[in-house]
Order: sequence, then C-alpha cells, then structure tokens
Amino acid sequence: METHKELTIGLFGFGVVGEGLYKVLQQTPSLKAKIKKVCIKNPNKKRNAPAELFTSDKNELLFDKDINVIVEVIDDSNAAFDIVSTAFQQGKAVVSASKKMIAEHLPEILQFQKDTDLPFLCEAAACASIPVIRNLEEYYDNDLLHGIKAIVNGSTNFILTKMFEDKLDFQEALLLAQQLGFAESNPKLDVEGYDAVNKWAILLNHAYGIVSHPDNLVFTGIQNIQLSDALVAKEKNYDIKLVAQAQKLKNGKVASFVIPQFVKHDEQLSFVKNEYNGVVIESGFADKQFFYGKGAGSFPTASAVLSDISALRYNYRYEYKKLYYHTPGELTNDFYVRTYVSFGALSDINKDDFEWIEEWHSGQIRSYLVGVIHFDKLSKSDWWKAPGVSVILSPDPVIESIELRNIQKRSLELAGIV
Amino acid sequence: METHKELTIGLFGFGVVGEGLYKVLQQTPSLKAKIKKVCIKNPNKKRNAPAELFTSDKNELLFDKDINVIVEVIDDSNAAFDIVSTAFQQGKAVVSASKKMIAEHLPEILQFQKDTDLPFLCEAAACASIPVIRNLEEYYDNDLLHGIKAIVNGSTNFILTKMFEDKLDFQEALLLAQQLGFAESNPKLDVEGYDAVNKWAILLNHAYGIVSHPDNLVFTGIQNIQLSDALVAKEKNYDIKLVAQAQKLKNGKVASFVIPQFVKHDEQLSFVKNEYNGVVIESGFADKQFFYGKGAGSFPTASAVLSDISALRYNYRYEYKKLYYHTPGELTNDFYVRTYVSFGALSDINKDDFEWIEEWHSGQIRSYLVGVIHFDKLSKSDWWKAPGVSVILSPDPVIESIELRNIQKRSLELAGIV
Repeated sequence: METHKELTIGLFGFGVVGEGLYKVLQQTPSLKAKIKKVCIKNPNKKRNAPAELFTSDKNELLFDKDINVIVEVIDDSNAAFDIVSTAFQQGKAVVSASKKMIAEHLPEILQFQKDTDLPFLCEAAACASIPVIRNLEEYYDNDLLHGIKAIVNGSTNFILTKMFEDKLDFQEALLLAQQLGFAESNPKLDVEGYDAVNKWAILLNHAYGIVSHPDNLVFTGIQNIQLSDALVAKEKNYDIKLVAQAQKLKNGKVASFVIPQFVKHDEQLSFVKNEYNGVVIESGFADKQFFYGKGAGSFPTASAVLSDISALRYNYRYEYKKLYYHTPGELTNDFYVRTYVSFGALSDINKDDFEWIEEWHSGQIRSYLVGVIHFDKLSKSDWWKAPGVSVILSPDPVIESIELRNIQKRSLELAGIV
Repeated sequence: METHKELTIGLFGFGVVGEGLYKVLQQTPSLKAKIKKVCIKNPNKKRNAPAELFTSDKNELLFDKDINVIVEVIDDSNAAFDIVSTAFQQGKAVVSASKKMIAEHLPEILQFQKDTDLPFLCEAAACASIPVIRNLEEYYDNDLLHGIKAIVNGSTNFILTKMFEDKLDFQEALLLAQQLGFAESNPKLDVEGYDAVNKWAILLNHAYGIVSHPDNLVFTGIQNIQLSDALVAKEKNYDIKLVAQAQKLKNGKVASFVIPQFVKHDEQLSFVKNEYNGVVIESGFADKQFFYGKGAGSFPTASAVLSDISALRYNYRYEYKKLYYHTPGELTNDFYVRTYVSFGALSDINKDDFEWIEEWHSGQIRSYLVGVIHFDKLSKSDWWKAPGVSVILSPDPVIESIELRNIQKRSLELAGIV
C-alpha cells in the first residue's frame, strides 16, 4: 500500500470556491489536508476566516517550504499561469480550476509536468463536479474512444432552457443566470462560446492526446440564436444545445467543433437542462455512457478541487496515456457537416459554400435552409458567425464523405429551388 | 512515469463476453495484452478461434508461469472462486466479472489481496460499462458520500419499461428480455432481485467500505408488481423502478435496501429505460452526479473487462480507501421508510407493523395503503415479500426519525379509517 501524504496547502483565491473549499476541509479532518495560507488580492475585504490566514504576498505561499500543494482558484489567467509556473519550480504539486489559463498554456503545463515529475490536477476546470477528466484518463485510456459529445457551459444551457421552457427572452434569461451566479463575470465569455472552447481544449487533450490552442478550434456560441430558430426546433421536435463534439473518423483523425446543435428529445444531452452539464462518451464495445452533474457554481467547483486534493494524498497524477503511449489524435477539418442556417437576407450567407441544400424555407422576416457544407469551408469563413446569421448543426452532423448526393444538389438547382 | 507491463492472459470462459474480449484484443495491439490460453468447459463445441488456443484443463492456465493475468468470465460461481483462489496463490493478477462469486466471497477476496498485494479488478461485475466501481474508489474517495441510488439490473428495468410503455404483460416482457440476451439464464436471479443484491454488495463495499454478505442485505425483486400498481403509479405521475439505495444517516450509519421504488419523472433514474443502468451519487458539495450506460450484454461487459485489463498495464489496483483508511461504513436498520403496499386481502399484510398510515384505498380486487414503517420491522418480517403483496417505496423513502407524526396515526385510528 502506498503512503498517504499529509498535504499542506497554499490557496490562491478566497471567492465562493476558495471559501467553500476552506470550510469543507475544516469539516473533514480525515482528508489530512490543511490550508496554511491564503493569498488574496484585496487585503482589506472582510473574510469569514482568521485574519492571520491571509496575505496579499504570493511569495509567502510559493516559497514556503512547508507548503507542498498550491491550489489556485482565481479569475485572472495571467496571474494564474505565473503562480503555477513558480509552484512547479518550487517543487509543489498544483491543483488548478483556471480553464482559460490551462487551455492557453497546455504545452507549457505538459512540459512542467515532464520536467518536474510533479502532479497537476484540474478536474474543476471542465464540467466541475462531473469527473470527466479522470474518467477520460483512466477509464477510456485505450484507443477505442469513438466520440465524445458534451454540454460544458452551464450558463448558455441555462439560458437556452429558460428560452425554450419558460419562454423568457435572451436578455431576461442571461440576467437570471447572472443573478443565480452561474455566469462568468463577463457574459461574452459564456454566451459567445469562449468558456466552452477553453474547457473543450482541455477535454480534447485528455480524450485524444490532442494539444491545440483554443484559438485553433472551430467554435461559436449562442449569441445569434433567434426566437424563430426555437420555433423551428419545436416543430421538428428538437432541443437546441451548445454542443462540444469530437468524433474519430475512419481515417483515424478527429473531427471537432463547439457549435449549437439540434438535439433529439430521446438523446441523452436533451436530458441536460438549466445549469447542468452532461457528457456522452461513445467507445468501442461500451456503446454510450452518459455523465451528468452540476458544471458550475461554487460548491460543485469546490467539490472537484477537493477530489483532486484527495487524489494527491495517494500520489495520483495524470499520465496522458493517449499523448505519450499511443499515437496522439490529430484534428482534421476534412469532413462535412449537415447544418441548419437561418438568416434575414440571402446576402448574409454564402450559399455557394454548400455542397447541396436539402431544405429551403423563405419567410417574411427570416428564412432558413438545411444543407451540407465542407467543414474546412466553414472553418475558414466568418459569415456564419456574423450577427443575424444563426447556425445550428443537425443531429449527428458529421458526414465523412459525399458521393452520389451531389446529384441532389444539381437536381435542386435544375428545379430552380436554390 | 511507470513501466507498462506486457500482459499475458489466461482466459476462463468463451461465451459472448469471452469471445468479444478475444476479438477486441486482437483488433487493438496497442493494448499489449495477449490471450495465451482459453479454458472452456466443453472442448467439443465449435469456436471462432484457433483450436490450439483452447483447453479444458484449468491448470494449464493457472500454473503457466508466462501467464500473469487471469481473466474469468464464467457463469459458475463456485468454479470461479476456485479459479480466483488458485490464481492469487500462483501470483497472478485477476480480472473477474462474476458478481455472485465476488459478493459471496468478499472477505476472502479482500484477504487474498492483502496477503499477496496482487490486484483484483471487477468493473464488469456491477453496471458493466458504467465505470462506477472505479469512480467510487477514486473520485468519491473521501467520507462525503451522502448517498447512492442505482438501477443495477438491466433485465428487470427492461421488463418494467416494456410493461409501462408498451403495455406488455410481465411474461411477454420477460420473454423479450431473454430473446434479446439481457436476462440471466435463470430468470429468478434477475426478477427476484438476487442479481441486483449481489451487485449492490459489491458497490456498498467500494462506496462505504461495508463488507456484507448479500444474504444480510434487505432486498426483493419485481416478481409481485401488478398491473394495478402500474395504474397507481401513472395516476401519481411516477415510474416504478427496482432501486438499490444507500444513504448515510445523521448518526453516520448507512441505510441500505434493494426494493422497487416510485420514481418521479424529473428524477435522473426515471431517464433510465430498457436494459440500461444508472447510478446517482450524492456527495457533499457536488450535488448529484448521474452515470448512465448499458449494464448488461456481451459488448458492454467485455468493454468493462477490457478497461480493467488496460488498467493493469499501469499497475492499477483498488485501494479500498474507505475500508482501510477511513472508518468503514456500518449498516443500520434503525430508520423508517415511507412505502406503498398493495394487496388482495387485508390478511395478507401486517397492518400493525406500520407507525402510521397516510393513504388507504379499498378496491374490489386489490387495495393499497401508503404508510410509514420502521425498517427493522420490515427487515425481520416476510409478509411484504409474499406473492400477492406488492411493496413499492415512496420517492425519498428514508425517514430518520419520527415524533409528532404519531398523532396522525392515532387520528386516523380514531376516525375509524384504519
């Protein structure tokens, strides 16, 4: 049996997550983890903990030889990277919840771990309370992972649920999400998909060994979804969700995107409502697994951090098996997607980008089409992200190759419909 | 980084699971796991693999020094225990899918692991493709696990779904489950809850460190559920599921049972239909997590076995942290449950066992009541399992203590209703 480390923690950040963590560690002495010092930005704010616990000097934590674990749950990703870099240099294990920092500095963080052989755990950075990173690392640790589909952003899912079910408009729903505390301080980060794509970059790494800067991933948010889109979804008996998806193609490469998607009512992701997150993993022989839980908020995040701290006691670390021991996955844009596009004027969209168009509905205010487009064209163009254009992928959107279907395009053209 | 063992496997059993495993190992050389020999009972049966792979002499596997892993996926639990015992003595790691064998021999299997320091993995033995054991071991490895509720038997869930949704009667639904291959060879094992309670004994061990023989756990199956119960459920807007549940009480002890339960439509377990399994884990700060996937069938089982094999390459073993490093959980029957009971004649039930009765419906053919009963009374009596009596627990059935509510009992008595 292994030895169980006593953990002495230096904590950065004492917001809702940091304070929640402090409380739960006090209540569970069996964890044998003690917070020695907490670094905060504003030393004058009143805190629910003894004053001597706090400092605003980061070096008091980073250079304290007693402290063997740095936990950082701060909002500033530059400061977070700085803290993490120094922590590694000083021989400390790191637990981080900063998805933006991790997503943007993945190569450096991987290198730190290689150089120092110190653990870096970040379960809280994606889907908070759902143990998705650890499951991708440990349970789906072979090359049989066919695909993964996830709702990783609680606030956009909350907004979409409220728009669909309670008929709130976008602004009301966003306001409610902010009041309830699931929205990022800057709503643009949630609504336009930045938060989702950061989490997705982390998950792609643990799922497939892919190391990609979030800027290089194809994504958008829910900012352009219109009430008329919701009506179409209702008619077709679909939900609209912001879905992050990766799929292994026959050639072994990986298709990936974070784009709104129509979801059938009997799909697992349709079950994911309000601020919840959900992950569907499709693997060889296991069919589909579905993981569901709270993806945001102070307690779910604190609980994921806690679980990482607990794992450190047993010397747990990610092995990045898919990156180091298998052939790491490689992203490709060489595939097609079937998608719905709604728009005000025909000039808003680039109709010729489509291989073929299967449905075409002209309306007085908004029109829409459903068509098949090469993903490389989508990834290189911007028209589909412009205000006024709303792109929602069809269920099972990925088409690996097209052949005979071109005939249909021509037939629609000949018929003068398109 | 750790070294990655080359695994040489001796496989017991070449039914659907064994053969599935053989195929997938052939297709994924990256796993570096090779089946050297397969032991089967009937040497004359035609197999889809080279004849030289097979033997009917178990010692050819157990005493082969090359073989470092024994995988057993056989149906006979006595033979399985024999194999496992010898495998440990011979210094081999073990992967087992035999839930009955494991549940009934838990103390011995724990001792073998202590004595030999060899890994014993059994993810396939509970909920097949859902990685619930590993998650309970690794992710919920602290003492904050408030409760766990699960559908662990696919065939009973399939039967209940078909009875509810497709209006099949019990026998038709059972026949269909057998034709589709999710039912145990002896349907009594599924229908009367034996399979569920075996899995539950294993899960209680990994969840709370409890070591209990399945005979000592309170359970029943779905054998007595009537069409009239389904109508009551429909009226109340509930599903009926066979739910295995454990809950930590305020005094730290654990309430546990496997009994049919009414499930509200917005509860996660209501989402679990047909042959699927689902597990809801409630833990401090994380709210509820929900895991969902196929719980039976050859491929889901083979996939769980595969994942254990893959984990052995990295020297993974269960640490049984809750058993060895925390205070292990202790079962108690000192709590109350709220339950629905339907019956033909009043003499079928023991009405006086109830603390109080909240609802009472007399019908021409069947009557029912909803009442609160001390669990110890339930555990010590048999009337509620007799043919003709159907017990279905209310949603959130556990009541830790009762006080003022006794008044209500008396008031019903005074009113002459009960």
